[in-house]
Amino acid sequence: MLRTHTCGELRESDAGSVVTLCGWVDSYRDHGGGLFVDLRDRYGLTQIAFNPPDTPEAFIEASKDLRAEFVIQVTGNVAARPEGQHNPKLATGDIELRATEFKLLNKAKTPPVSPSAKVTDLPGEELRLEHRFLDLRRPVMQRAMMLRDKLTKRMRDYFEEHGFIDIETPILGRSTPEGARDYLVPSRVHHGHFYALPQSPQLYKQVLMMAGYDRYVQVARCFRDEDLRADRQPEFTQVDLEMAFVEQEDITGMIDGLVEKLAKEVLDIDVQLPLPCMTYDEAMTRFGHDAPDLRFGLEIVDLTDIAPQSDFGVFKSVVESGGHVRAICVKKGAEHYSRRGIDALTEFVKGFGAKGLAWFRGEKGPEGNPVLNSNIAKFFSDELLAEMGERLGAEEGDLILFSADKWLGTCKVLHALRTKIGEEMKLYDPKDMHFSWVVEFPMFERAEDADNPQAEGKWSAMHHPFTAPLPEHLEFLESDPEKCRAQAYDLVINGSEAGGGTIRIHDAETQSKVFTLLGIDKETAQDRFGFLLEALQYGAPPHGGIALGLDRMVMLFGGIDNIRDVIAFPKTQKASDLMTGAPGTVDARQLKELAVKVDM
Amino acid sequence: MLRTHTCGELRESDAGSVVTLCGWVDSYRDHGGGLFVDLRDRYGLTQIAFNPPDTPEAFIEASKDLRAEFVIQVTGNVAARPEGQHNPKLATGDIELRATEFKLLNKAKTPPVSPSAKVTDLPGEELRLEHRFLDLRRPVMQRAMMLRDKLTKRMRDYFEEHGFIDIETPILGRSTPEGARDYLVPSRVHHGHFYALPQSPQLYKQVLMMAGYDRYVQVARCFRDEDLRADRQPEFTQVDLEMAFVEQEDITGMIDGLVEKLAKEVLDIDVQLPLPCMTYDEAMTRFGHDAPDLRFGLEIVDLTDIAPQSDFGVFKSVVESGGHVRAICVKKGAEHYSRRGIDALTEFVKGFGAKGLAWFRGEKGPEGNPVLNSNIAKFFSDELLAEMGERLGAEEGDLILFSADKWLGTCKVLHALRTKIGEEMKLYDPKDMHFSWVVEFPMFERAEDADNPQAEGKWSAMHHPFTAPLPEHLEFLESDPEKCRAQAYDLVINGSEAGGGTIRIHDAETQSKVFTLLGIDKETAQDRFGFLLEALQYGAPPHGGIALGLDRMVMLFGGIDNIRDVIAFPKTQKASDLMTGAPGTVDARQLKELAVKVDM
Repeated sequence: MLRTHTCGELRESDAGSVVTLCGWVDSYRDHGGGLFVDLRDRYGLTQIAFNPPDTPEAFIEASKDLRAEFVIQVTGNVAARPEGQHNPKLATGDIELRATEFKLLNKAKTPPVSPSAKVTDLPGEELRLEHRFLDLRRPVMQRAMMLRDKLTKRMRDYFEEHGFIDIETPILGRSTPEGARDYLVPSRVHHGHFYALPQSPQLYKQVLMMAGYDRYVQVARCFRDEDLRADRQPEFTQVDLEMAFVEQEDITGMIDGLVEKLAKEVLDIDVQLPLPCMTYDEAMTRFGHDAPDLRFGLEIVDLTDIAPQSDFGVFKSVVESGGHVRAICVKKGAEHYSRRGIDALTEFVKGFGAKGLAWFRGEKGPEGNPVLNSNIAKFFSDELLAEMGERLGAEEGDLILFSADKWLGTCKVLHALRTKIGEEMKLYDPKDMHFSWVVEFPMFERAEDADNPQAEGKWSAMHHPFTAPLPEHLEFLESDPEKCRAQAYDLVINGSEAGGGTIRIHDAETQSKVFTLLGIDKETAQDRFGFLLEALQYGAPPHGGIALGLDRMVMLFGGIDNIRDVIAFPKTQKASDLMTGAPGTVDARQLKELAVKVDM
Repeated sequence: MLRTHTCGELRESDAGSVVTLCGWVDSYRDHGGGLFVDLRDRYGLTQIAFNPPDTPEAFIEASKDLRAEFVIQVTGNVAARPEGQHNPKLATGDIELRATEFKLLNKAKTPPVSPSAKVTDLPGEELRLEHRFLDLRRPVMQRAMMLRDKLTKRMRDYFEEHGFIDIETPILGRSTPEGARDYLVPSRVHHGHFYALPQSPQLYKQVLMMAGYDRYVQVARCFRDEDLRADRQPEFTQVDLEMAFVEQEDITGMIDGLVEKLAKEVLDIDVQLPLPCMTYDEAMTRFGHDAPDLRFGLEIVDLTDIAPQSDFGVFKSVVESGGHVRAICVKKGAEHYSRRGIDALTEFVKGFGAKGLAWFRGEKGPEGNPVLNSNIAKFFSDELLAEMGERLGAEEGDLILFSADKWLGTCKVLHALRTKIGEEMKLYDPKDMHFSWVVEFPMFERAEDADNPQAEGKWSAMHHPFTAPLPEHLEFLESDPEKCRAQAYDLVINGSEAGGGTIRIHDAETQSKVFTLLGIDKETAQDRFGFLLEALQYGAPPHGGIALGLDRMVMLFGGIDNIRDVIAFPKTQKASDLMTGAPGTVDARQLKELAVKVDM
């Protein structure tokens, strides 16, 4: 190695030794008689002194040409820093390296993105992505990549301890039924045919269970040909696993253990097992969302049964047409949200389909008891207000916010309000981590497909067509699909779905019923999933699995909001070079070959 | 879990306990009064007895419907097998499970590929690939997948111990300069543009070094749009790493340690470090190949200097036109290869471009000393034969085989002969493992490109255009490229290249010289490698790396000849379903979208 130590490891106990470091010039300060340089590598910063008497004059002179991001190899004497010059913020802050010689390994032009810049001094993300190699030098990015590495490695260790086999499934395969658009890869060898990049290894891992592999795991690259979003990349990574001879609790229990290990080893947090668990119906009822943020309360209260007793037309007509009136009671919210604040919330909920925002404040009543008041209070009798207040647990200073709409509409609006208010009123410590399960998802939902009106209203699988219903709901498959709940489970962290899985159908008869319900005829099923249907007939074991979103996990464990900050070379729409992954042009020969095959 | 134990773990010490197993019926034997079933899972086989008195009559009756590959869950009493019925070949051979009840989890049709069949009873590979899920149930396939998992995990552990960070690089990127054809992926979002699937993460990992990541590793999926071969798949896996601030010995030393660990932990073999090392020139001189099989000798002897002294026209004319006469002396080869055997070898070498095969036998001379004899002996004087015999170390019973051709032609023929004879004469134990390095490869070779006559005779990079020359050969870059040797190193295992790497160029000036030599003009370089060239200007550290072929490593460590036996779902040319990876058809909507973009 060109060095004896890294820039992060020298301590006061190393004083007196002669060492060689390599790294980048992070900053330099000319003190007249010599130069101080902070030398940086992935491991840390070390202060280098180019001063007499340790540094010969020639090297002091040469050191004056050093600039930010120059790469040097420097040898010198480790010395304790003089009294008063220790830097407690730096792991190496008790020493400095007094250079006796150095070698310039490479120069650097003035970087358009400075790796040592404070976050507030950084240029815009577009420029940082364009010069990704400089952006990736920033310690915060390096910590994110190291966190990603550590999380992944700890997961691999855990799954090895539990007898899982890491098996690589193909990237070049056949179209799978995940719902999003596939990336297609024309085949030169098979004219007119295309490979598809996998949206998940779902079918492969099920076949692996049927092939007897018992416990499979893979950190799998997956692809969806969809437009970019702040939290979505067309190329993403999934920690994908599957187990045979299991029931739902075996999978969730396995992941419980993983969560406990990761929380402890990565964040030094103790997690109590088993993780809390609620059904989908409960989550929607209490929080309006299937991945509720349980770091705070602010639960939804349903007032549908008493709301029509008022003279408030909106409530009456919504309930009459089968809708719901639901509300959240924001403790001390009246203080936080002035009239102007409520106006802002009203604008906010319009983005989620609400026409307006009915609200009440808890005020001090004539007898000192809290009473609800509002610009619509006149439509409500005192008795009704009292009953509502009691139901909501409203106290003086609280703010009550309503949604009156179809069930799912109230869920959408109140979830959005709840999330926004939780953040704005700091109802939780951002360092809190809350892990839980949501289970018993509906098997089916009515399709909403604007692109394909024929599909509108038809049943589609909420997870995928291989999900097993609850055993006691098997009968609903034909009689009442809406009631049918699945053996499905989502891992929720801080209000984000970190992963989801299901127990799979392992008998051909149930699989066939589900296909029928989904309008997948035999021929189509055979064409798309033939190999799976075949395998089902040759001794398929009960099995199930889960997939965790690795990008999301890194974001959640690192408290990182931007998905592009947890991926070394993310895709962007604007940048056009390899590093940021936008597609390039191909040469004429390649294009000609492709055109021949695709233009059919 | 539906089981308390696996089918591989019960021992005599478990006798008396009540357990539940799950698995596949591997075989069954009706003994009149009851049934014996060997139950199989990934962990082993356990004998289940459906006999009175343990098994109730109803279950004995039901058990008679069991057939091969049925999946069952069975509960019973663990009992030591009766005296004389122990099976020492089976880890569970000292016990049997006496069933008290069982449940049929799934039926199976009669499998076209029987997982319990002997290798000799297996159907052809095509049928096995078509029913891959059954083929994958065979214990030998499961052992291969577990070996792959273990090798990979041990590598990951090793690299973690040595401070490497696992960083995922994109699958969807830009065309890279690896030489083979890229798979192209049309982009929906960017009309007329294509992603390319990576042939290796080469450029990304170099950029990661320039971004300060210091030590990078990735088990990376790579792609080459080439026709299938017995030892090549279009989608393959590379253990890819890169280190900054290193010299060649740091990389080879790091891999030495990896090899030592893998050999010990996977094969229980002790490897002496450092691994032996020879230059490319030495390998070609002594063995005719840059990845010599060092499990045996049979080295090449050069007779070019004395061969023209004979009257044998072929030798004379070859040497006159600048060619070489080289030979191998096969100890006791005369016994092994009769005249008919030599005829077969002659046919064999014609496949490698030889016109014929000159040979001699070591026979007992008049004074008891060995003399060379052959059908061409008359063209050689006794003195010359004696000198040749001495040079070759020929003894009575040896067989000497010649190649007279251009240097590379003799290498090709003698390497082929050496490999074939080593195998046929069992010159090594197939369980032997020999690890070594070959270093100092030529930087450049003359292109041979039948598709592109204009490129014929031009210089091309033997590794890739980012490879650094030996420092002392820098001057040859312009004066004598042929002499220029690279800081390149291949890991060779048993005559196979298991991996290869180089120290990279880290200064823009040398990089520019190499591009010029390779005929890559500035514009092209900028277009293809612009981001790398940019990064070179902003503080690039000295760096280098290596990539190990994981598929190859598994084959070598497992003694497995067929690459499709180390990949769960390999590509084949004939099968057309997802499991064997041939491309499928896409629907009309998908096709239309693509056609719009590709037909430009």
